[in-house]
Parts: sequence; C-alpha cells; structure tokens
Amino acid sequence: MTEPVYDKVAVIGCGLIGSSVARAARSHGVARRIAVADNSPEVVQRVKALGIADLVTSDPLEACRDADLVVLATPPGALAQAARACAPALKPGATLTDVGSVKGAVSEAMAEAAPEGVFVVPGHPIAGTEFSGPDAGFAELFHNRWTILTPLEGRDGAYQAAVERLTRFWEGMGAKVECMDERHHDLVLAVTSHLPHLIAYNIVGTAADLEEVAQAEVMKYSAGGFRDFTRIAASDPVMWRDVFLLNRDAVLEILARFTEDLQALSRAIRWGEGDKLQELFTRTREIRRGVIAAGQESPEPNFGRDRDR
Amino acid sequence: MTEPVYDKVAVIGCGLIGSSVARAARSHGVARRIAVADNSPEVVQRVKALGIADLVTSDPLEACRDADLVVLATPPGALAQAARACAPALKPGATLTDVGSVKGAVSEAMAEAAPEGVFVVPGHPIAGTEFSGPDAGFAELFHNRWTILTPLEGRDGAYQAAVERLTRFWEGMGAKVECMDERHHDLVLAVTSHLPHLIAYNIVGTAADLEEVAQAEVMKYSAGGFRDFTRIAASDPVMWRDVFLLNRDAVLEILARFTEDLQALSRAIRWGEGDKLQELFTRTREIRRGVIAAGQESPEPNFGRDRDR
Repeated sequence: MTEPVYDKVAVIGCGLIGSSVARAARSHGVARRIAVADNSPEVVQRVKALGIADLVTSDPLEACRDADLVVLATPPGALAQAARACAPALKPGATLTDVGSVKGAVSEAMAEAAPEGVFVVPGHPIAGTEFSGPDAGFAELFHNRWTILTPLEGRDGAYQAAVERLTRFWEGMGAKVECMDERHHDLVLAVTSHLPHLIAYNIVGTAADLEEVAQAEVMKYSAGGFRDFTRIAASDPVMWRDVFLLNRDAVLEILARFTEDLQALSRAIRWGEGDKLQELFTRTREIRRGVIAAGQESPEPNFGRDRDR
Repeated sequence: MTEPVYDKVAVIGCGLIGSSVARAARSHGVARRIAVADNSPEVVQRVKALGIADLVTSDPLEACRDADLVVLATPPGALAQAARACAPALKPGATLTDVGSVKGAVSEAMAEAAPEGVFVVPGHPIAGTEFSGPDAGFAELFHNRWTILTPLEGRDGAYQAAVERLTRFWEGMGAKVECMDERHHDLVLAVTSHLPHLIAYNIVGTAADLEEVAQAEVMKYSAGGFRDFTRIAASDPVMWRDVFLLNRDAVLEILARFTEDLQALSRAIRWGEGDKLQELFTRTREIRRGVIAAGQESPEPNFGRDRDR
C-alpha cells in the first residue's frame, strides 16, 4: 500500500455518500485516520457499530480537530450550516470539500465559512444508489465514476497543490477526476441528473394519482419501463428537495426546454406524424451508443438478458 | 418433458420478441414444431443460421399452413397486414394471437382478417430489452414476466378453451398470465410503459440539442440518472412509433396529466416550496417499495451495489 494522501480525514454527515467515503478512504489506504460526525444520535450509534471510522461523534468540532481534509457530506441544504459548525476547528493548510450535486449555491457559503489558510475545494462524486443511510454505503461506490471538482477562481500555487492532493485522494478511491467551472457543473448536472430525477419523481407521482388504474396494477405491470423510473424516484427525498431548490435556475431552464420538446412530440402523436417520431427515436438510439462508448455502461454482449435477474 | 401445448406454432416476424417466442417454445417444449416467417431476406437468413426453428421462410402462408397457433410478432403498425397475409392459410380451430403493446387498435383488425372458425386471442408479453433483431432474443425472456391476454367479448366455450390453451402456452414458457379488457390494457400500458418511453425519448432528445453542454459531457456524466433514460430511449424506433400512433388517445391523456403535474412541480421549485417537493419525493419512494413487493424487482439486500458492474 502506498503512503496515505491525508493523515486525518473528517467526514461530516454519514449517509450513503459519507459512509462510502469513510469506507473507501480506509479500504484504499488514502487516509491514515478517519473521523465521522453526524448530528443524528441513531446514525452515530450505527456508524460506531459498523466500525468504519476511528472516531465517531456528534460533535463536528471534535471530528475536524487536526483534520487534513474535511468532507462535508450532509444534504446540500444543510451544507452552509455544517461548514460554519466545522470552521472553528479547521487548521491552516487543511482542505474543506463537499460531495453535493449543486456547486454554485454552496461553494460561496463554504468559502465564507472557512477561516484564513484553509483551502476550499468543492467537489461532487457522480455516484450513488437509491438507498440512503450509513448502511447503504460501500467502499467501491466511486470505482470508475467521475468526481468533478470546481476549484475557486484566482487562487495561488498552494491552492493548486491542495486541488491536486484532493484529486489524488479521489483517484486513490478509484474515481476519475475532472475540474470545471461551478456554473458549468450545475448546468451539466441539471441535464444529466437533476432533470432525470425530477421527471422520474413526477411520472411516478402521476401514476400514483390515476383513478382508473389501480396502484397495484401499475406495480404489477411495471416491467414495461415504469420500473426504472420507480428506482430513480426512490432516491433520498431531503437531498433531492435541496438539489432542486439550490439549482433552481438551471433546472427550470432545462425543464422549459424539455417541456417545449414534449409539446412538439405530443403534437406529432396527435397528428399522426410517424416520420417525426421515428426520426427522434432513431437519433436517441445513437446517443445510447455514445453512452456505452464513453464507458458509462458495459456494451452488454449478452443483449441485456441479465438485466432482470 | 410434458406434452407440447401445440403441435405446430408459426411465428410471423422474427425480431427480439418473435425470436424469443421461437426459442422459448422449443426450449420449454410447448410446441412440437416451430415455423418462422419474416419478410426481410436478411432476417430469414439469420434465423436459419441460428437454427431456432424447424422451418424458416419469407412466405407467411407456408409458415401458417397446418399451424395450431400463429403468433404475429411484427411491429404493431404492420400487424393488420400480417394478419391478412396469414389468413388464407389458417385452419379451423387454430388460434391467432399477437405480442403487441397496443391491443384496442389491432384486435379488431385481427378479428376481421381471421377466417371463420379461427380463434383470435390478442396477447402482450410485458418483457423486452432495448435490443432488436433475431439475435437479441432468448428463451428466458418471459420468465416471471406477465403476459396479458385480451380475449374478445361474447365468445363461446370453444373460444374459452382456446384462451386457456394459449394461457398454458405462455405459462409453459415461464410467464404469468392475466386476462383483461383491451381498453383497460391500453390505459395501463400507457402509464406503465408508453409514457415512460415517450419521456425517455424526449429527455434524451432535449439533452442532445443543448448548445451549452457538449454531447460528450452528457455521456461522460450520465451516471447521475440520465444513463437509465438512454437505455429506455434505445428501444426499437419503428415499434415505438407504431405504439404511440396506435395508442394515441390513452397516451395523450396520460401525457396531459403528467404535464399538468410537472407544471405544478416546476412552480414549487420556482417558489421554493420545499415541503411540497419533499412530500412528493417521500410518496414516490413508497411506490418503489410496492414495485419490489409486487415481485417486479428484487429487494436488493446489497443496496444496489451490483447495479453498475
């Protein structure tokens, strides 16, 4: 095993992502000591029982004391408060990062909360499942997944070194790392993650409200496509509430385009314009090939036949 | 092996579903002989090479001669024509069925085309993948999946016996069978399958058209939710064009409700109504549990961690 990237790492908030960071940091040897803080007594107790950290506490100051890296892993809406709660314990030269799906609205709050000499480097691992809580985490969650860092502008060489160190931390846990501007991150994620979740939540809600079709039937016959949406729409409610509120402008912009396109599609169906439909459906099939080519899904030489088993 | 349910089964159209029926019927021993017809010379050649049928021909009459069961497995839009092409060869007492995702618009056409003494029993196995063509089929595709039959109204005891025999055929291939009214089928499927596909096609199209976000980025960061939509939006373009055109009224009705709900959600985001969002997201999570309870997906005691590998 190579030398750890950080001596002490503190993880604040220990749900699916936080507990995965704790597990991954230990199992990949990128941290020598791991401290976890969570404001829920149940979570603290559970994390102690899981034995995935060297120190588990409800006190963020205790967790952050002497930490070389502090990873904020609370829901995005609680992030600013968590940053302020940790700030007094942050030592000069430490790095403060997060794992949230929205960057613009939170990096300013983190920068404001951090004391002089602390490097604030917002981050976002694009990884997750529909499960929540400390038990749902696992050490391989970040394997082959992208982590996006959105470094603050106009910083010096020491800051750049902190970014590189954080990059090594994520790479050490199996992730691929890319840096980008926080505004661009929020737009890209609005398309690739936030809108898909919003749509999935919405369609599952629409189906649940139908009078003519019993909910039992919807579930029974869900293999025709609906089932995939139910999985996405089972993602953490608090986290996703925060994401939509904090990335409001980008989400509403992408949603407006989606709705416009959907109206056109609806019109094509109403007027029987089969060529238009087929043209779109042929184009989207090509994009799937691109997703496979980008290594984001296996090429499935077995034609997806393991999917449901 | 028990006695085959039918002596000779003819499959007309040999794509993903047709070739799966041929393979499943043979490997589960529910047909003694299997004939396949397809109007594409390439498909005929390929099916011959795969060796999944006793007779492979481009002539539907040759395939249907003496058949006890004829399964129409063309795209829904070609079904009426396929029924008419087979009709002259159908023997009295034979059963004519199909596998299409729309029932109302096609069962009348099948009933009109079928000669006196032939039992028309429309059907729909709710199973599939995003792949197409004879190579994509497999014998286990229908295992533990529902097949819905929509028997015609006001038929006699002999007809009922034909429905029961077709039920045994599907059950013999591992499916669970349920009968329902064709109008209700089309509404249920509009919710559980047609709208999800329409939405997936639409969101992938919207993403592809964005100027600010490169397509390469969309693919690269697709693990946040978008990837699941690309899989659904890779489904067969011709089949899905036909589904939307043939189930127009039900699809537009469900789509209108979806759009209405989406406007409300959009408004809640714009006005920062976090409680409304969280309430919906909590409700949809419960529905996921229902899908798992209905046996449509495994409960995943490993928290979904095998999903991406």
